[in-house]
Amino acid sequence: MLRALPLTGFHAMNRTECANAIRALAMDAVQQANSGHPGMPMGMADIAEVLWNDFLRHNPANPGWPNRDRFVLSNGHGSMLHYALLHLAGYDLSIEELKRFRQLHSKTPGHPEVHETPGIETTTGPLGQGLANAVGMALAEKILAKRFNRPGFDIVDHYTYVFLGDGCLMEGISHEVASLAATLKLGKLIAIYDDNGISIDGKVQGWFTDNTPDRFRAYGWEVIPDIDGHSPEAIKAALVTAAADPDRPTLICCKTVIGFGSPNKQGSESSHGAPLGKDEIALTRERLGWPHAAFDVPQAVYAAFDARGKGAKWQSEWDALFSNYRNQFAADAAEFERRQRGELPADFAAVAGALIAELVGESAPMASRKASQRALERLVPAIPELIGGSADLAHSNYSIVKASRDVNTASDGGNYVYFGVREFGMSAIANGLALHGGVIPFTATFLVFSDYARNAVRMSALMNTRVVHVYTHDSIGLGEDGPTHQPIEHLASLRLIPNNRVWRPCDAAETAVAWKLALERADGPTCLALSRQNLAPQPRNAEQLAAVARGGYVLLETTPGKVDAIIIATGSEVDLAVIAARQASQAGVAVRVVSMPCCETFDAQSAEYRESVLPNAVRKRVAVEAARSDYWRKYVGLDGAVVGIDSFGASAPDKALYAHFGLTAERVAAELIGH
Amino acid sequence: MLRALPLTGFHAMNRTECANAIRALAMDAVQQANSGHPGMPMGMADIAEVLWNDFLRHNPANPGWPNRDRFVLSNGHGSMLHYALLHLAGYDLSIEELKRFRQLHSKTPGHPEVHETPGIETTTGPLGQGLANAVGMALAEKILAKRFNRPGFDIVDHYTYVFLGDGCLMEGISHEVASLAATLKLGKLIAIYDDNGISIDGKVQGWFTDNTPDRFRAYGWEVIPDIDGHSPEAIKAALVTAAADPDRPTLICCKTVIGFGSPNKQGSESSHGAPLGKDEIALTRERLGWPHAAFDVPQAVYAAFDARGKGAKWQSEWDALFSNYRNQFAADAAEFERRQRGELPADFAAVAGALIAELVGESAPMASRKASQRALERLVPAIPELIGGSADLAHSNYSIVKASRDVNTASDGGNYVYFGVREFGMSAIANGLALHGGVIPFTATFLVFSDYARNAVRMSALMNTRVVHVYTHDSIGLGEDGPTHQPIEHLASLRLIPNNRVWRPCDAAETAVAWKLALERADGPTCLALSRQNLAPQPRNAEQLAAVARGGYVLLETTPGKVDAIIIATGSEVDLAVIAARQASQAGVAVRVVSMPCCETFDAQSAEYRESVLPNAVRKRVAVEAARSDYWRKYVGLDGAVVGIDSFGASAPDKALYAHFGLTAERVAAELIGH
Repeated sequence: MLRALPLTGFHAMNRTECANAIRALAMDAVQQANSGHPGMPMGMADIAEVLWNDFLRHNPANPGWPNRDRFVLSNGHGSMLHYALLHLAGYDLSIEELKRFRQLHSKTPGHPEVHETPGIETTTGPLGQGLANAVGMALAEKILAKRFNRPGFDIVDHYTYVFLGDGCLMEGISHEVASLAATLKLGKLIAIYDDNGISIDGKVQGWFTDNTPDRFRAYGWEVIPDIDGHSPEAIKAALVTAAADPDRPTLICCKTVIGFGSPNKQGSESSHGAPLGKDEIALTRERLGWPHAAFDVPQAVYAAFDARGKGAKWQSEWDALFSNYRNQFAADAAEFERRQRGELPADFAAVAGALIAELVGESAPMASRKASQRALERLVPAIPELIGGSADLAHSNYSIVKASRDVNTASDGGNYVYFGVREFGMSAIANGLALHGGVIPFTATFLVFSDYARNAVRMSALMNTRVVHVYTHDSIGLGEDGPTHQPIEHLASLRLIPNNRVWRPCDAAETAVAWKLALERADGPTCLALSRQNLAPQPRNAEQLAAVARGGYVLLETTPGKVDAIIIATGSEVDLAVIAARQASQAGVAVRVVSMPCCETFDAQSAEYRESVLPNAVRKRVAVEAARSDYWRKYVGLDGAVVGIDSFGASAPDKALYAHFGLTAERVAAELIGH
Repeated sequence: MLRALPLTGFHAMNRTECANAIRALAMDAVQQANSGHPGMPMGMADIAEVLWNDFLRHNPANPGWPNRDRFVLSNGHGSMLHYALLHLAGYDLSIEELKRFRQLHSKTPGHPEVHETPGIETTTGPLGQGLANAVGMALAEKILAKRFNRPGFDIVDHYTYVFLGDGCLMEGISHEVASLAATLKLGKLIAIYDDNGISIDGKVQGWFTDNTPDRFRAYGWEVIPDIDGHSPEAIKAALVTAAADPDRPTLICCKTVIGFGSPNKQGSESSHGAPLGKDEIALTRERLGWPHAAFDVPQAVYAAFDARGKGAKWQSEWDALFSNYRNQFAADAAEFERRQRGELPADFAAVAGALIAELVGESAPMASRKASQRALERLVPAIPELIGGSADLAHSNYSIVKASRDVNTASDGGNYVYFGVREFGMSAIANGLALHGGVIPFTATFLVFSDYARNAVRMSALMNTRVVHVYTHDSIGLGEDGPTHQPIEHLASLRLIPNNRVWRPCDAAETAVAWKLALERADGPTCLALSRQNLAPQPRNAEQLAAVARGGYVLLETTPGKVDAIIIATGSEVDLAVIAARQASQAGVAVRVVSMPCCETFDAQSAEYRESVLPNAVRKRVAVEAARSDYWRKYVGLDGAVVGIDSFGASAPDKALYAHFGLTAERVAAELIGH
């Protein structure tokens, strides 16, 4: 496992000059943008130089090479460090792009964004989540290595490096994922802590007094403390040591000087988040011995950093290895490549079809969380890349099935993660799993605790990662646990996250369709809001069953062809809507019931389809959902009504709560009859 | 500081029987409710018995006695432990209430809820937050003790005890607040860890392998490891030791058996979250030697637990002390009592009036975050109980002012908390500060990072605590930091939390009013969404200025008395709305501009007032806010338009972003002219 690359020529003699190139690019780009964070890149330049030139195996010509080492900047505000490295190493990131740092449509946004810049592995900036993503990447590597490697064929064998700062370490998520990384024995995860003693408010000793090495030892990490972050030799030795332990993740604690080289601002928060200023930059150039103009990098430095040759060689070696692997293990190779492409198994459509048929055929009431488990009973064995788990609620979320095998003990890598009570960590690790590729992650917890994980759901939506969140106990229907556990605002809040999809199925059949669509959705997360309580199955014809996939569809018309009023409902309230419709019908109102399991999917349909379901002319509308009402004004307008809940819940059996909060068919019917 | 109370009579001889009373009440109540968590109360019964009978100073007849010890159940699912203790100690919680565990309108909801049950200090259940609340309470105690105590007059001198389990310790927030508690030297915080090795999914060693004592030592805590949680002597000795250290918070690690006493379920997750069952309860009675019927507690046990006599004595001693204190330090005593009542200073109205006058008088454009700082410059010195801080963004949130003094160093207790990068911990600590009483907390971070703290904001709304959240950088207007830092869905998401108030002022004057109302609001949290960029001041007459407090009001009519169309806007988009109105007016449309800084406050106005601002008949409406559009359908209906942002943001200067996302006066005007 030990590996350090030999240096040659200019580079071996001039490490400092190479690091200074990073410093200069960072301070110049921030100055040009008149915005940004020069301090961290200048402080971590020596570390980055050693890691990238002596250790990191990657291929600038192919940022998607599956076996590349992953590099994550959890302290993402130091984005210019990463951009400088990518530019110098030979990625498709020109000096012109660096000059356009933080400008509209540039490849160099304020914080690193995956898909925007070649070589960026994940979007960082919200502190601590980069570390979590890195844990997910290292976990994916471990699972895939166990699944695919064969003696002599380590086709999955890479490290995951992550830079992090004081801010990441103060965030709670760092605790959740560092703890779990040790439990999962992610020995190929190497974290490098930029221990510069400064955060935005100043010297951290006023608010951050942890003994961080001891803290990480308490998790079971290998800790390499007291490294001089400006000594290439010390950094190199630490990285060699870090790579050696196959079981323990490693934290290398590097003492650095923020803003290194700036005579008047280094070591101070004044270098953290603002341009140094023209005069100070001139002084810094002098101090560093960097006589070159802004954005001017000597060819010798470019040559020393250039990783294109090495990268091509590494990839060609791997290609040859994989070619031999394919010869000997054709099925495994094909499976590996399928997963890399993000394609579902060839028989997925058949599996999903059988699942839907099975659950459509269920005539007994069933909780949608139970229907979800029935779905997973079929999907988990059929989709080996489906890796998931629960934040310590496996048997409440019904996230575990017969085919589930603990990733920590299964010899073939497993597919089930016991995440522990770590909702945020779980969700951000899931993002890392998805970004790594080769696996499709799902998470599970109670819907109300999506709050704990909320920014990770947002990040998966922003990063277009395929993650499925199983959120059970989706309303006051969970009953006795009371208002702390009863979501009210969560459905609407999750729907408001751009590029997120929230499915709240009304019965087992809709649950099956939701799972199918969640897995087929390759460009963003899906949240499944599932009931604790039983839900009656709704009858549907084939056309209606097909229309579930449109997010909203006509489930019932009391007087076919005539629509005086529309009830829109989701999940557990659909059955209530059907009963209300029949009551209103007896009072002479022709009612249409629209089941709306996914508003965002419905909104994405054609205007014609939406008009066919919700005709603009029909303004007598009632939406019913055991949740905050405001969101539904979007569909019922100023003249409709919403039967929802605008206060917190209460502790009581579910039926008592529905009556208490007025979520009854009678009230819905009255809204229609009364108008 | 050492204190252990002498035991007498039955109690001294029969500690086990006292603990068994807790066990029996817990298992019987859960059985009767057919829902709940017996395992934790049965496991922690011995610990609780020792703490409550030998240490806890409280007064069952007056749960509001200011100097009571605080007791927090962070593992709130074990609520029956707390209810049993309150009942046995003599609080106003009858055995009938215990029989109605988890039923509608009982005083014994599924998880402990402050204000629902006498003696419950905070609402817990969402794991980890109880610990954070306890940190806040201990911090409040420390600040108030420094401020009010005089030699011989320790009128503020109590401990804060918190029970927590594996789940709390796995949650990230436990890291944030434990770290900060040590930095803040909260020596009177005593946490007792129920180390039973079991969480919902089973034996925790599969997902929780921390060395917790070492972890807490790394924070700087005093750790007392390896206590037998079923040995009263060991527990008592540990509590004596814990109380002695004035600077270090203490973690007592107690090995316990979950479901202690249940022959077939103890030590297993099967006792965690479900009734034991009638047969197992019978066996448990036998094993424990508890022959009494369900809910039948012997008088000797009641007598041993009864804290009413002790409580009356403690309070009367304190009352006498306070009476003497009042004689010697009249002003301080009056101030202490005012703060306890939650009343603002007598001159608050004058201070707020002067603040509003000052900011109304500002003619230059000003960022609302800057206006907020101007508000704090007046409010912090005028309201000594106002204690706040930022999650490491003091000079971005403008949360720090000349009168700010670090609570960690100020000899009089201080008023500023350097929270570090700990948004969730900060917000849950703020809840603890508010619950303790005597202080009014505020927090500060970027609006987008309200995500990290979201459930704590929810909890403050649920608990009716007065907390002010300063959320700056409230839109794409923050510019170059890009989509990770640009809120889109956050304004609407926060508005959806029941009992939360979100103010997004459009200029300095509205900012001043928002601060005034936030502080006056005693029954829930307020979020202030503030701009990074400058905002033009809007002209208003006196009536309009007064109407700001109604949440929404008519700011402008282009043709007085005539309203063809309405533009509704908030914050930075109000000025844009005014420009658009003038453009549309030139095209012959009579436009009203409604400034809507707080939708929830507007919604709480009378129907008449709302109709006067938004006449139902005027359906040509446009809402404009640089945020997710869906929420605004509530005000514009199916026939109006929303100019908002339904995708993620981008990294660029703010003006470029407004143009890129089409947030322009021209587009708003076109919506009005085009109709």
